[in-house]
Order: sequence, then structure tokens, then C-alpha cells
Amino acid sequence: MKINRHYLDLEKSYLFTDINHKVAAYQASHPGQSIIRLGIGDVTLPLCPAVVSALEKASAEMGVKETFRGYGPEQGYDFLREAIARYYEKKGVTLQMDEIFVSDGAKSDVGNILDLFDKDNTVLVPDPVYPVYVDTNVMAGRKVVYANATAENGFLPMPDDSVDADIIYICSPNNPTGAVYTHDQLKAWVDYAKKKDAVILFDAAYECFVADSSLPRSIYEVEGAKEVAIEFCSFSKTAGFTGTRCGYTVVPKALVREGAELNGFWLRRQTTKFNGVPYIVQRGAEAVFTEEGQAQTRANIDYYRQNAKVLADTLDSLGIRYTGGKNSPYIWMECPNGMKSWDFFDLLLEKAGVVGTPGAGFGKNGEGFFRLTAFNDHENTAEAAERLKKLLGELLNR
Amino acid sequence: MKINRHYLDLEKSYLFTDINHKVAAYQASHPGQSIIRLGIGDVTLPLCPAVVSALEKASAEMGVKETFRGYGPEQGYDFLREAIARYYEKKGVTLQMDEIFVSDGAKSDVGNILDLFDKDNTVLVPDPVYPVYVDTNVMAGRKVVYANATAENGFLPMPDDSVDADIIYICSPNNPTGAVYTHDQLKAWVDYAKKKDAVILFDAAYECFVADSSLPRSIYEVEGAKEVAIEFCSFSKTAGFTGTRCGYTVVPKALVREGAELNGFWLRRQTTKFNGVPYIVQRGAEAVFTEEGQAQTRANIDYYRQNAKVLADTLDSLGIRYTGGKNSPYIWMECPNGMKSWDFFDLLLEKAGVVGTPGAGFGKNGEGFFRLTAFNDHENTAEAAERLKKLLGELLNR
Repeated sequence: MKINRHYLDLEKSYLFTDINHKVAAYQASHPGQSIIRLGIGDVTLPLCPAVVSALEKASAEMGVKETFRGYGPEQGYDFLREAIARYYEKKGVTLQMDEIFVSDGAKSDVGNILDLFDKDNTVLVPDPVYPVYVDTNVMAGRKVVYANATAENGFLPMPDDSVDADIIYICSPNNPTGAVYTHDQLKAWVDYAKKKDAVILFDAAYECFVADSSLPRSIYEVEGAKEVAIEFCSFSKTAGFTGTRCGYTVVPKALVREGAELNGFWLRRQTTKFNGVPYIVQRGAEAVFTEEGQAQTRANIDYYRQNAKVLADTLDSLGIRYTGGKNSPYIWMECPNGMKSWDFFDLLLEKAGVVGTPGAGFGKNGEGFFRLTAFNDHENTAEAAERLKKLLGELLNR
Repeated sequence: MKINRHYLDLEKSYLFTDINHKVAAYQASHPGQSIIRLGIGDVTLPLCPAVVSALEKASAEMGVKETFRGYGPEQGYDFLREAIARYYEKKGVTLQMDEIFVSDGAKSDVGNILDLFDKDNTVLVPDPVYPVYVDTNVMAGRKVVYANATAENGFLPMPDDSVDADIIYICSPNNPTGAVYTHDQLKAWVDYAKKKDAVILFDAAYECFVADSSLPRSIYEVEGAKEVAIEFCSFSKTAGFTGTRCGYTVVPKALVREGAELNGFWLRRQTTKFNGVPYIVQRGAEAVFTEEGQAQTRANIDYYRQNAKVLADTLDSLGIRYTGGKNSPYIWMECPNGMKSWDFFDLLLEKAGVVGTPGAGFGKNGEGFFRLTAFNDHENTAEAAERLKKLLGELLNR
């Protein structure tokens, strides 16, 4: 018996554990102080009424023989895949039904998609980045190289022809930096992938936060992308499904490598190692696309956008540099006075009772930066902004 | 870019596709004939009222800010893991909470668990078998060897010391043969695994059908099994969750290979590549373990057991050999007069309008055998039994 020893190469990820310990210790020693969490990327608004009533209706259907559903199609019910296809049509992207795969979330698919690729590929990952991209490849023993995302390039690294890569991760709007690629920038990545015979794994989990209509919300808005890219999306941020679990992945038929359609590979992977998303949840997801569901979920997204604006305005008033906040629920700010990100974390907690995420937790280029999220409620966000303003104003003498 | 070329080694699985085509063609040419399906292993009874009301209640909770749930623990909520631990206690098996992992179903976990093991392991799989065991290993490029399950060994192959294996699949009650290992037989497998330093992957998806209290429903009822076995179970057959998607996997802390606790590996796998089961579904699964839920789900299982008995009694009256039917929802019958399994499929469809599954679809030792399932309703099952009796009586001159 040989275990997969690559698991021993994983760095222990203590980021959120460390944060929780520090917050708990602070709370114990400051029982009176209110703490506002702008740390984890989880939503706080409940599911919208259209979704809840669809979930309830589907739950009731499951209790009646005539409407009960057993095993469904592994790749998702037609009613949901059709709704997703119509959603893409509105972005100007035409997909075939069997290019869309419904899943239990982008995180699962972003990890599982790697089953389709040989161990012997070089993976290009931006730094800083959502840790799952790196960890899932370390688990498989793949070589990982980094594209540096820095203040100089607006946290939007561009392709470098001197770097060879086979699998390329792009997350736009980005977690953690909130930066969003333009059409032209994505086109450069698509061209680079073609040149290198690489596959782009495009994480569009935050696409619904793009308010600027000149910015792409799908990589397939870029010509030629279907020949090089797989796109992952999710209802988590769009409709508050973080605890309801539904996402979808697009594998275009035009994506062919070594003569094989990766669409067929993914279909085989999913039909063999997955058994579909609960019928009830798929009905809930379908309701997101109704007129009522769209209005209600858009209202929720706008609610979070207003939070982002409150935080961004505060930083603007202080002259602090940041990315995100406009087309993203994340604000990625420079720590004041060249502070290290964990030092700023401690200071912000101690002096203001506000919890964020130290940039260093997302990669070496995250050092000196700090992530705030827009997912708390209006009241707490406004209060956190006031506290930030006071603390940072003092620190910067403004 | 190198694709995972092992996908090209997969045999195309046309079993259920071929069956569907044949049935559709028959229906088109015999529009008046009623067809009874005893083929696919999907349930037909709706979710029980206790589960439906838990699903509805949880759906409503998700629509209220105070009771809304975002990201949950990847390994499942405590309320469900505690209920599962209590369920094991009743079988005489004590588990630690963090040995239990809630998932979206046994099929996913049986495939994904292979992430923990090196490609360079030899896998021992019974033949005939649930095709997922073989396909998931072929996808990873592992060597697969077979343990022959035949009428001679009651479709319960025993370990052979001359065979070296690192990963061993056991499914008991078995799909497709319905055969169930005794304690002593499982003990022999546990001892063999210890000797070979192998890991047993024990698929207990049909444990709820074991009526004979002398037969084990968990491999952990066997002494020493925690040091060698991972167990997979599911609410699919227990509570009709085939379309609701919930299962669980037990990875004991005592299972150590090359100095590593596989429990920690699986935790890392699941926290990195999975984001938990929907809160709503976990509440539905919790309700299975309430007094009301247990009474209702047991009634459903008894309903299917009666179907199995009707089919088994029919075969008994004809003197046809079979396994299963007593502690399993499957009846694995010998085809009459030495017929090949696809020939019997065609005959049964043509002459009796009954659909089953040809044994050859499950492996070479399935040739000459045929699977019937107990998951249709009483009326259809009784009618199918009548038709079987008539057809087989004529064929066998009885």
C-alpha cells in the first residue's frame, strides 16, 4: 500500500484558524467590545423569497409518489441547464446544453477538473490567490509556478511568453484582490494559452458583482476562448447559496487536447464519480433565473455593493490605495505606513474591533495588503468604516 | 498540455443505454403492451413525511436572516454526525465524531477516496461488481485484479493469499448479487488486509436491507476492522435519498499507512475539494434518525422487502437458483436453460414485458445471470412475478 505522499507536501493552512484564535482571545480579554467581521467571504443575507418558495415546493413534491424524483442526470436537470444557457445568452455567449454541467459548487469542480489532466503538467497560478488552486495541484504532485500580482500591475498579471504553462488559473473578479480583467487583457491570456497549448481554468464565481458593463463577466465573451477555457461559476455569491450548494461548469465542445474532447472526459468523470445535485436545490437554483428571482437576487447584490462602496469611500477619503470594491465584494487595501499584513490585522482588531484577512495568507505578494469583505450588513459595515477611518486617520495623521 | 490518457482506457459503458434503446424499440413496436421495470436500482417510494417536513422547515429557515446558514463544516454538521454516531452505537460500533464525514453520496466518496492513494497500487475488485469501482481506478491508471464471485462460492469470494492487493473493494449486501458476507467471512478479509498492509473500501450502501441479525451491517462489527477499513454508506436506499443526495464515510483514526492517518488525509481532501452538503439536506437526513423517521423509513424498507420476497418465492416455486432477495433489494438469478444474460433480457422483454439487468453488464462472471430489483411498487412487482412464473414455467416445462 502506497499512500499519496503528495499530501505530505501540503503546507498546513492555518489562516482562518489563526484568525479565529486571535479573535477568540481578544473577545475573552475584552468582553465589552463589539467585534465586526469583515473577514470570511460568506454571505449574510438569507435566500430570497423566490428561491425559498421553490425549495419548499420541491421538498413537498419529494413527499408525493407522483412527483417524487430519484436519481437525476449527473450533469443536472434540463430545466436548470436551460436557464443557465439563457443567462449566458444575455452576456452574448451561446452555449450548447451539453456544455453545461451543474454541480455542488465551484470549489468541488475547480478541484475535481484536475482529474482530466496528467500529473506531468506545469500549472500557472497568480499570487496572491484563493488557496484551493495551489493545494489541489500539490495534492496531485504537479509543478506550480506563479504569476506575480502586484500593485504595479494592478494585481492583474499578464502572460509572459518566457514562462511555459499547461494549466492556467484566472479568477476575475479576483479573490482576494477584487481586480477585474478587461476584454483585451483576457484576450491576451487566451492568445497565450493557444500559443502554449494550455488550458485556462476561469473562475467566474464573482461575475455577478461586475457593474461596469465594459468588463467581461465570462471568458467566453472573448473570441476564441471556447478553444482554450473551462469556466466555473456558482450560485454562492450570486444568490447566497454558500450553504445551499449549487454551481456550474462550462466545458466547451471546442476544447480539444491531444485529439480528445475534454467535454467528454468531464462527462465521464462526473457520471462516474458524482451523482448530481439534489433535485430540491436545482429547483431553488432555477428560481434564481425567474423574473422575481433576478430582481430579488440583484437587490441583494446591490446591498453588498453599497457596503463595498462605503468601505471604498472611506479608503478614498484617507488616500489609501486599494483594488476591488467596485466590481467585486472584496476590497484589497494597502496596509498603512508599510505595515506587515498580520501586524495590521492585530492593530485593527485591538484598536478598532474589526476583523479582516491578512494578505500574506493568500501568497507572498499579499504581504503588506489586507482584504475586507462587503458581506456584512449595512449597520455593521458603516460602523466598521467609521472605526477604520478613525484608526487610519490617526495612523496617517490625516 | 498532457491530458489524463487513462480516460482513453475506459471501456464505454453502454449497459443502461443499451437497455433503454431496446426497451424504447420494443415499446414503439408494441404500443399496447405494459412494461414493468425491475432494472435500475432506483427507489420509487417518496420521501417519508418526517424527512419532508424537516426539508420544508430548513428551507424556510434559509429565508430568514436569523436562521440562515452560509458555509457549513465540510465534514457535516454536528447534529447529523451525532445522529450517525448513535446509529452506529446501535450496531455495537463506537465511532468518534471526527471519524464521520457527511457527503453528497457514497458514489462520490467511493471515487474521491482514491485521491488518498498512490497510482502505484494493485486494486482487488470482485467480479461481477458495481462498475464504478473499476472505472475510477482505470481513470487513475491503477492495476485492477479480480476476485471471482461465482455460483460455486455463493458470489462471496474469499481472500487468496497468493494474490497481492493494496486496495480491496467489498460490497455487502452486494450489488448486483445480493449476497451478504458473514462475520467470519469479513474477519478473513480483515485478516488478509492486515497481512497485505492493504486498505478495504467497504461499501455498506445496502446495509439497511439486512434482516438477519446474525449478519454484519458494518465492517466495524468485525474486530480489528478499524485498522484496515474505510466504510461508505448512504441515505439513498435507507431513506429514498437517490435524488436528495446524502451519504457518509467513516475513516477511523486507527487506519494508518506509511505513518500517516488516512483520516487526516481525507479531512484535507474534503476541506480542499468539497464544501459540504446543503444544510437543508442535512436536516432531512437528521430526520431519518428520529423515532418517527426510523418508523417511516423502516416501513418503506419493509415494503421493498416484501417485493423481494414475492420475486424470491416465484423463483423458489420454479426451482431457479438465485442469491439475494432476503437481505438485499436485489435478486440475482441464474438464467434458465443456460441462456446468456442478454438473450434472457431480450426474451423477458419480448414475451413478458419485464425489464431486468443482464448480469454480463457487471463483469464476465455475470454471464448467465440476471438482476431483478425490489424497488418497483407492490402491484407491478406482483404482476411481474406472475409474468415471470408463466414464462419460466413454459421454458422449464414446470
